Formats: sequence, structure tokens, C-alpha cells
Amino acid sequence: MKRICLIGTGGTIACVPTENGLKPELSAHELVKLSGCEQDGVEISCTDLFSMDSSNIQPEEWCLIAESIKNKVGSCDGIVLTHGTDTMAYTASMLSFMLMGIPVPVVLTGAQYPAVYPNSDGRRNLVDAVIAASSLPGGVYISFGGSVILGCRAVKTRTTSLNAFESINYPYVAIIADGKCIKLHEPKQPLGFAFSTAHDSRVALVKITPGLSPKFLDSLKDCDMKGVVVEGFGLGGMHNFRRDHTESIRGLMNAGIPVVLTSQCLYEQSTPDVYEVSRSLSELGVLVAHDMTTEAAVTKLMWVLGRAHDIESVRRIMDTDLVGELTE
Amino acid sequence: MKRICLIGTGGTIACVPTENGLKPELSAHELVKLSGCEQDGVEISCTDLFSMDSSNIQPEEWCLIAESIKNKVGSCDGIVLTHGTDTMAYTASMLSFMLMGIPVPVVLTGAQYPAVYPNSDGRRNLVDAVIAASSLPGGVYISFGGSVILGCRAVKTRTTSLNAFESINYPYVAIIADGKCIKLHEPKQPLGFAFSTAHDSRVALVKITPGLSPKFLDSLKDCDMKGVVVEGFGLGGMHNFRRDHTESIRGLMNAGIPVVLTSQCLYEQSTPDVYEVSRSLSELGVLVAHDMTTEAAVTKLMWVLGRAHDIESVRRIMDTDLVGELTE
Repeated sequence: MKRICLIGTGGTIACVPTENGLKPELSAHELVKLSGCEQDGVEISCTDLFSMDSSNIQPEEWCLIAESIKNKVGSCDGIVLTHGTDTMAYTASMLSFMLMGIPVPVVLTGAQYPAVYPNSDGRRNLVDAVIAASSLPGGVYISFGGSVILGCRAVKTRTTSLNAFESINYPYVAIIADGKCIKLHEPKQPLGFAFSTAHDSRVALVKITPGLSPKFLDSLKDCDMKGVVVEGFGLGGMHNFRRDHTESIRGLMNAGIPVVLTSQCLYEQSTPDVYEVSRSLSELGVLVAHDMTTEAAVTKLMWVLGRAHDIESVRRIMDTDLVGELTE
Repeated sequence: MKRICLIGTGGTIACVPTENGLKPELSAHELVKLSGCEQDGVEISCTDLFSMDSSNIQPEEWCLIAESIKNKVGSCDGIVLTHGTDTMAYTASMLSFMLMGIPVPVVLTGAQYPAVYPNSDGRRNLVDAVIAASSLPGGVYISFGGSVILGCRAVKTRTTSLNAFESINYPYVAIIADGKCIKLHEPKQPLGFAFSTAHDSRVALVKITPGLSPKFLDSLKDCDMKGVVVEGFGLGGMHNFRRDHTESIRGLMNAGIPVVLTSQCLYEQSTPDVYEVSRSLSELGVLVAHDMTTEAAVTKLMWVLGRAHDIESVRRIMDTDLVGELTE
């Protein structure tokens, strides 16, 4: 008998229609009954942590979720977390760091359409997630649309289709077919469970566009930001004349604010060493996200800022693969 | 005989290795010789407009390019523009608006690897672009990796692979195979050529992340921004409690700054009407990018701000499909 804990946090899967639009109101227990996910050989215990649209899930909720999961480790074989899709990739990324080395699988799932709708993907997604949580090794995953993705490698790429998430720069971990979890890739296992919710959420993400005023980056110092992730062009380029973003980044770094360079391209790695225009970024010591997703880069930087306080210490951790989030 | 104008602007395709990394130095004429793109039935005239890494191409360059293209309409059957890949989708989007209804095809191309490298994609891309510019109806396109994409629907999704661009929420216009342009989709043709480079480049793009301080959006007023595009979660959601972005957006709109809502998901449309959490955004009159790419939304807003000065006039144009950039 597999003991699975289901933790409900709201999201579309739990939504019902109201006068003001869809609102998450179903409990975890109602979702179990509706989906029939409690099958032979599986015993599910339910917890309702909160009931929110995931557009409102913030670092405070990440800590609540991580604490709740930590408290269940030892009394179950796997954990399923129902969650809205909109920020699920961010939550999965942050949980990957906060729950580093967790010995049981934590499987996030949700739906593009409310589970109470006749053709909803929610019931199938929940059944799949329970199967994944009964089968996978420890770690944080998203199970959605029949695919299982390592939590820190998932990005929501589609606003309405049922295959809402993609695995970026990393193999799919498994597919769920005919009620079975078919494993495709075994993620590496960190050594030991190192639970910590320490973080600093004062991280800004800047996606550069042609013509952007350097004032925009300069102003981050006044917004009380402690770290910045910049989505540059291509491998990580940005203007260095007329509107000189390199100088703005130098200003941030000189103020002790680590700047992590990534690409606005969805796939493949960033590296500022290739072109003359971005060499100067390299030379001033900008940090690089390599092939991390933006979701992983932002949440990892928040998490790292909870334990490292100078740029070189931040760089050392950002450059290290902790839970499969980057290819070293 | 087809008369094709080739306009060189630099980019990886024109790069040569230097001590400080790759630098664009080949002329348009050298690219023609290197690629052998001047084939039977085609006569190519070359112009070197400037030689830049496209990470440095800014609205001022868009105007130069648009003027240069306008001056060649009437003396040629098609135009090929070589350009770095990093901001090619932004340039193609803005040219689509500045050159609305252009009677000849304008085909942007470039390369992931310098044309002087033995296995570069640059020579094939240039040959393909000349074929596309000899075959397609008027409009702005990107020809890359064997596919032709409507300019305002292209996004660079890969930093290193040869299929660097994808057509987002719109069919591919053509493929180039065996030296032929195989048309897949006929874009609608605007009525008449309406050339104008008027624009206001003071547009900021904000990609929301969980926990982002509302100060970040509030500070845009002090950065002298005249328009804002916000990449929300999923269909366009963002926090409305604890850190209330809705209030920040209300503040921007009340200051006369139009805010256009889009999704950070690459594919499919944004619409803030579905969930309770984003209804308030709808109610306060936020503009919506529908299924436009972020590149198209940002450049269209710059272009619209060059001709409309109150939020309702801006909304009217943003909601109208001008050149195929949105599905009405």
C-alpha cells in the first residue's frame, strides 16, 4: 500500500464558476472523489493548505507549502500538490531548492480547465500525479498532460492547451500511459535532505527590449532590490552604445547587487563570451544563468541570497548544479 | 530577371573572429560572393547601411533601415536585409508597422554562425532569402533555417540551433526546399503603402515574477516611460493582494500611461476576463495584446504612441490587426 499525501492550494483544477469569474473553491477531498485518483494499492490523505489563484502565490506561500511538505516526509511515500498552472513552474523551481534532497517525490499538478467541467484535464492530471508520486524517486516534479518534468526545468509555454508545460534543456523524466509511470530519465540525487526556506525575495527580472532606457536598470537600486536577473538578447547581449546597459549593470554590481545574465530565448544556454558586444559584461563579472530557465534563475537567486551575502559567494552557488537545474 | 536589393546591417552572418570575440565586418557584396546567392534570373545590388551586432540595434536604426528600404521600393522586385539574429524579431515586427502595405517583399535573414565558417548556416540562409524575396507577395518576413515566417509573428526561441526562430500563433508562410519557395499561407494584404517611421521608443516591458515589489511598476513613471507592456502569468494574471500590482497598473493608467497586458507563455493568447484575480485588471481598462508576440506588442505600442496620444485611441489601434500581428 502506497501512502500519498494530497495537499490542495487552489488553482484552476479546484475552480468553480462564480459571478466574478472562476474561483478556486473545491477541497482536496472533493478533488479525490471527483477524479477517482484513489485506486488499488494507494491510500490518500488530504490537506487543504489554502485556496488561491496561483497568480497570487508569492514567496510567503512557497514557505508555507515547503513547511507543510517537510512535516509529511516520513509519514508518506509521496506527495501530490494541486496548484494553479500560472505560477506552478516558479513554485516547483523554488520547492526544488527549499526541499533539496527530499527523500520522497513531490509532484505538482493542476489543470487548464476546472475539474468540475465535463472535458476538464484536471481529473486525468490528478490520477497521473498520484501514479507519479507512487513511482518516482525523491525530488520535485510537475506532472501535466501525461508528461513528468523535473520541477526546476519546467516552463509554462501555452495559455490554454492541455500540454501547458515544456521541459527546457533537460529530458522529460517520465510519461504516464495506461495507468503506468514509464521512466525516461533518472535525475541525479543530491546527498541528504537539506530543508531550508531561507531566501530574499527582493529579486527583479528585467527583459531587455531595443531602445530601453538605462534609467530602467538604474532605478532598481531605488526599488530596494538585492538581486537582478536580466533576460538579454540571444546568448545574453544588450546595448553598449547610445543607451549603455553595460554601464547600468556595472553600477548595480558596484552597489553589491548581483546581476545574473540569461537569455530571452526559451531554449538553449546563455553565454556572454562569444560576441564583442557582450565581452564587456563578462569582464565586469556578471553572473550567468547558463541553461537554467528564467523561473529557476529567479527563484535560485532568491534562495541563494538567503545564505550568501557577497557577490563571489552568490556566484559560486549560482554556478553549481544543485538539483538538476543547470548543465555544468 | 528579378532585381533584388541586398541591404547589409552586420550581424553574425557578417562576423569574422577578432581578439575580442566575433565582430561584423563582411560587406553585403562579400556575402553575395561567399554565398553564391546571385543565381540565374536574379540580379543583386548591394548596400551597406551599417555593420552592427544586432544587440545594439535600437529604434534609431529601425528608422534608418525603414528609410533605406522605402527608397528602394520601385527600383527592385524584392529586398533582402541581413541582420543579427538577436533582435531580428523586434526589427521585423517594427518594420512591419513602419512599412505597412509595402508592395515588395522585405526578407530578413542572418545566421547562427559566421558565413566564413565552413559549416555556417549563413550561406544557405542568404540563398533562401533571395529565393523568398523573388517569390513572395509584399510584406515583411524572416527567412531562416529553411522556413519563412511573417515578420510580426517571429520569435527567436533558440540561442544556438539553426532553427532559431518560430512562428507564434500563425502559420509558417513558406518553406524553401530544393531552391524553390513553397508557399503555405498567404498573409492578408493591407490596402496601400503607408510609410511612416513616427514612434515613441519610451516603452518598458515588465515580466512579472512571484513576489515582485509593486515599487518596480510604480517607478516606471519616474523613468519617463510613455507606455508599458506587462508579461503576466498565464492568461495575464498578477498579484492583487499583499503586493498589489493591480493598484500599480491603475496608477500608471491614471497617469495617462497605457498598459498592455500579455502573457509570459510563448504560445497562445492572453485574456484577463476568465479568472476572478484578473477581472479587476479588465475593469480598470488595461489594454490586451491578445495573441501578439511580445516583440510585436512592444514595437506596435511604440509605433502607436507615435500617432495616438490618449489611451482610448491607443487601444483602438492596438486592438486592430494591421499587418497580421493579431488574430481578431
